[in-house]
Amino acid sequence: MNAPLALSAVVLEQLSAIVGEQRVRTDHDSLQTWGKDWTKHFEPNPSVIVFPATTEEVQAVVRLANQHQIAITPSGGRTGLSAGAVATNGEIVISLDRMNKVLEFLPADRMVRVQAGIVTESLQQYAEQQGLYYPVDFASAGSSQLGGNIGTNAGGIKVIKYGMTRQWVLGLTVVTGKGDILHLNKGMIKNATGYALQHLFIGAEGTLGIVTEAEIKLERQPQDLKVLVLGTPDFESVMPILHAFQQRIDLTAFEFFGEVALQKVLDAGHVGKPFDTPCPFYVLLEFEGRFEAVVDDAMSIFEHCMEQGWVLDGVMSQTQAQAQNLWRLREDISETIAPFTPYKNDISVLITHVPAFIKEIDAIVAASYPDFEICWFGHIGDGNLHLNILKPANLSKDEFFDQCKLVNTQVFETVQKYNGSISAEHGVGMTKKDYLEYTRDAVEISYLRELKKVFDPNGIMNPGKIFDL
Amino acid sequence: MNAPLALSAVVLEQLSAIVGEQRVRTDHDSLQTWGKDWTKHFEPNPSVIVFPATTEEVQAVVRLANQHQIAITPSGGRTGLSAGAVATNGEIVISLDRMNKVLEFLPADRMVRVQAGIVTESLQQYAEQQGLYYPVDFASAGSSQLGGNIGTNAGGIKVIKYGMTRQWVLGLTVVTGKGDILHLNKGMIKNATGYALQHLFIGAEGTLGIVTEAEIKLERQPQDLKVLVLGTPDFESVMPILHAFQQRIDLTAFEFFGEVALQKVLDAGHVGKPFDTPCPFYVLLEFEGRFEAVVDDAMSIFEHCMEQGWVLDGVMSQTQAQAQNLWRLREDISETIAPFTPYKNDISVLITHVPAFIKEIDAIVAASYPDFEICWFGHIGDGNLHLNILKPANLSKDEFFDQCKLVNTQVFETVQKYNGSISAEHGVGMTKKDYLEYTRDAVEISYLRELKKVFDPNGIMNPGKIFDL
Repeated sequence: MNAPLALSAVVLEQLSAIVGEQRVRTDHDSLQTWGKDWTKHFEPNPSVIVFPATTEEVQAVVRLANQHQIAITPSGGRTGLSAGAVATNGEIVISLDRMNKVLEFLPADRMVRVQAGIVTESLQQYAEQQGLYYPVDFASAGSSQLGGNIGTNAGGIKVIKYGMTRQWVLGLTVVTGKGDILHLNKGMIKNATGYALQHLFIGAEGTLGIVTEAEIKLERQPQDLKVLVLGTPDFESVMPILHAFQQRIDLTAFEFFGEVALQKVLDAGHVGKPFDTPCPFYVLLEFEGRFEAVVDDAMSIFEHCMEQGWVLDGVMSQTQAQAQNLWRLREDISETIAPFTPYKNDISVLITHVPAFIKEIDAIVAASYPDFEICWFGHIGDGNLHLNILKPANLSKDEFFDQCKLVNTQVFETVQKYNGSISAEHGVGMTKKDYLEYTRDAVEISYLRELKKVFDPNGIMNPGKIFDL
Repeated sequence: MNAPLALSAVVLEQLSAIVGEQRVRTDHDSLQTWGKDWTKHFEPNPSVIVFPATTEEVQAVVRLANQHQIAITPSGGRTGLSAGAVATNGEIVISLDRMNKVLEFLPADRMVRVQAGIVTESLQQYAEQQGLYYPVDFASAGSSQLGGNIGTNAGGIKVIKYGMTRQWVLGLTVVTGKGDILHLNKGMIKNATGYALQHLFIGAEGTLGIVTEAEIKLERQPQDLKVLVLGTPDFESVMPILHAFQQRIDLTAFEFFGEVALQKVLDAGHVGKPFDTPCPFYVLLEFEGRFEAVVDDAMSIFEHCMEQGWVLDGVMSQTQAQAQNLWRLREDISETIAPFTPYKNDISVLITHVPAFIKEIDAIVAASYPDFEICWFGHIGDGNLHLNILKPANLSKDEFFDQCKLVNTQVFETVQKYNGSISAEHGVGMTKKDYLEYTRDAVEISYLRELKKVFDPNGIMNPGKIFDL
C-alpha cells in the first residue's frame, strides 16, 4: 500500500462528517504534535489528525480508511519510547484525547469501565476517590493514556506484586483493522469460551486495531508503605537479598541501581545520600508495613543480610516523607541522566541470569568502548534492566549513537543467548523492529504476520510497527 | 475433512516409528479409556492412542497427521466437564501421560519448567517441596494435568486472590496444528515484543495446537489460613459482606452455597453443621491469619456484619482441623449431590449482577419446573456460579435431561442479558458449542475461526470443539 502524501478533499470532508469539522486538523503544528511520541529519531509526517469521541466514530474512520487504503496511527499520551505512535508516512492519526471519560464504576466488582484515552494518573486518582487502587505506575503516568499502556502492556515499578497492565484488564472494546467493533470479555474474571482475544490486543501496539474502552480491575489500597534502601558489595548479593525477603514478605517493589546512577542523582542536589557507606550497587525494597510484626520481620531479615555480608549498609523509612525521599534516589535517575544523552535499552532476562548478564555486558562495553560510562538501573524483581550508556563529552551525538548501534548488536546477541527480551516494557514500535528476531524466532514472527492479516487484511493499522509486512 | 474409520497399516507403522511400538495402542479398552473425559454424553471412537515422550515426538505425530489429513485430539488427565478431550470420530489421541516431568527449577525466579502432562497435584507438591506454592486448586487436582488446565484456563477455589491458570503461565512450548514448535515467552515476566501468543493457547482447548511444556510461576506459601463460615438471611447480604472484608483483608477464598447444598452435605453424615441457626445462604471466607492483628480485624468485621443484619450466625476456625472441616461443607457438595443426577451449568456474571441473576433463574425454574430442586454454590468472589438442577425421583434420566435442555436456553438467555459467560471455567468443548453465541457474538466467532486457520490450516487439531469449522 502506498500512503498518499496528502489526502483528497473528499476524504477530509468525510472525516469532518464523522467527527465534526473542529475535530479534524491538518495544520503544521498539529501534525508535528500529534504525529509523534517521545522518541525523536523519526520525522513526523501524518496527513491529518482526527479526534473522535465515541467507538462508533472510530469505527467510521477505520472503515473510511479501509475504503481508501489509507494508513492509520492510533495516538494516546504520546509518551512511548519505541516510536510505536509516530506517523511518518501520510497516516490518519486517530487521537484518543477526547475519549477520556469514566463510564461506569461497579463497587462490588471493584471495576471501572473507562474510555481508552483516560490519562493513567486520572485513572489512579479516580480509583483513590473510590477508596481503591490502580497499581500500574511509572514515570510518565501523568501524560500517558490507558490505551497506550494497553498497547505496550505497560509495567513500571510495582510489577513484582501487581503484575503488568495485562493483569488489570478485564475487558476491552476494540475496533479491528477491518472496522468491526468487538466487546472482548466484558469485565469477567472467569470466562472460558474460546480464544482470549483481549490478550492479543494487549501489547499489539495498535497494529491489530484500536482499543477504545476498557474494563479495569481495581485493588485494595496499600497501607503504610515502608521503603528500605540497602547497599551491596557486588551484584551477586542482590539475589540472596531478594530471596530472603520474598520468603516472608510480600514485596510491592524491588528495584536496583548502580553507583553511577546514584552519584548522578546526588550530584543533582535534590536529595541526600541514604547512608555514608559507598557501595557499588543498591536495592530499594518496598512493602506494606501495616502490621508491626511485618516491620519487625523486615528488620530481622535486614540484619540477617548484614550478617551474611550481602548488605554493607542500609536504611528503612520511618515516615512517609522519608519513604518518598528514598524513592527519589531511584525515580530521579531517568531525568538526571537525560543531559548525558543516554542511549537506552530496556531489556529483560530471567532473574537467575541477571548477574551473569550484567557482567557480560559490562565486559563488552569496557573492551570495545572504554570511554563509555554505563548507568544500570531497573526493576530487578522482574528481571527488567534499564541499560543506559552515557555519552562521553568528547563525542558528538551522531558519532555516539553510531557507536551505540554497534554495541546494540552485541547487547542483543547476549540477550538472545540468555533467552531474554529486547524490549521488556517499551514495545517494539519502529526503533526495535529490526532486532525482533533476537527475541522471537522467524517461525514465530511468521505467525505474528498471519495474525495481523486476520484483524487487518488491508494492512492499514499502524503499518511499519513491530514488523514490516 | 473426513476422518477415516480405521487408520491404514502404513500410518500405524509410522506412528510406531515415532513413539515406539509399545506406545501405540489400538485395543478396545485403551480406545475407550483415553478416548474420553469425565463427560459421559458422547461415545468415544478414536482410531489410536499414542504416548509421546518429547515435544519432538509430538511434532512428528502432528506432521504425520497433517500429511494424511487425520484429526488429533490432545488428552491430559481426562477430567474435563465439557467433552473437550473426547474423541468421537477416528482421531489420533495424543496422550501426554508420559510427559509428566519437572525439567528445571529456578529458585531466584520462583519458576518451574515442566512437561504439560504433569498432574496438577504433583506440581503443587513439587512447589511445596521447594517451600513454595502453586495456587491453582480444584476438586480434580489429583488427576487433571497441567496441559488440560492450560487448555481451559482452569480456575478453582483460590481465584479471588491468585487468579486463573493464565496468571501463572510465564511461558509455553507448543506444537501448532501446522506442526511448528514455538517457545512462547520463555518464562519472562516482562516481554513487550509483539502479540502474546501464549495467551491464545491458554483456553484454546487444544484446537490451535498442543501444549507440551510450560514455565510456571510459583508463589510464597500462605500461612495460618483461617476459615469463616457465615450464614446470611438472604442473597443480597452476601455482597456487603464481601465488600466489608475486602476493604481490609486480602481474602484467599470467598465461596458460597445455598441451604439445599448444605443440607445434602450434612445428610451425608461426614461433617457436622457449622452452627445451629438455619440460614438460606452461607458464605465461606478464607484469609491468611499469620498476624494477630489480621485475625482481630476479621473478628471485628464479622461483628459489624452481625450488627448490620447481614450475618445471622457464624464461626471462625481455631485450628487447622476445624478449617478443613469447614472447607468440607463447600468442597463435598459436588460429590454429595452426584447421586441426584445433577444437570450442571458453570456460569459467570459480574458480581454486581449476581443477586438479580440468581433471582431470575430461581423464578424461571420455579415457574416452569416446580418439581426441580436447585442447588446453588460457587466462587461468588469471582462471579462464578455452579447451577445444579437435581433430578426429581419420579423422572427418568432421559426425561429429566430433555427438560433441562429447555431450561438451558432460558438460563443462557439470562446469562446473555447480563453479559455473562456460559462457561466460566469448564471450557466449551462439545457440550457448550451450540450455545457459544450467548457469550460471544457472531462477528467475534468469525475471528475465532480465522485465528484457528492461522495455526491449523488443515483443521486437524481437536475438530468439533469450541465451534465447528
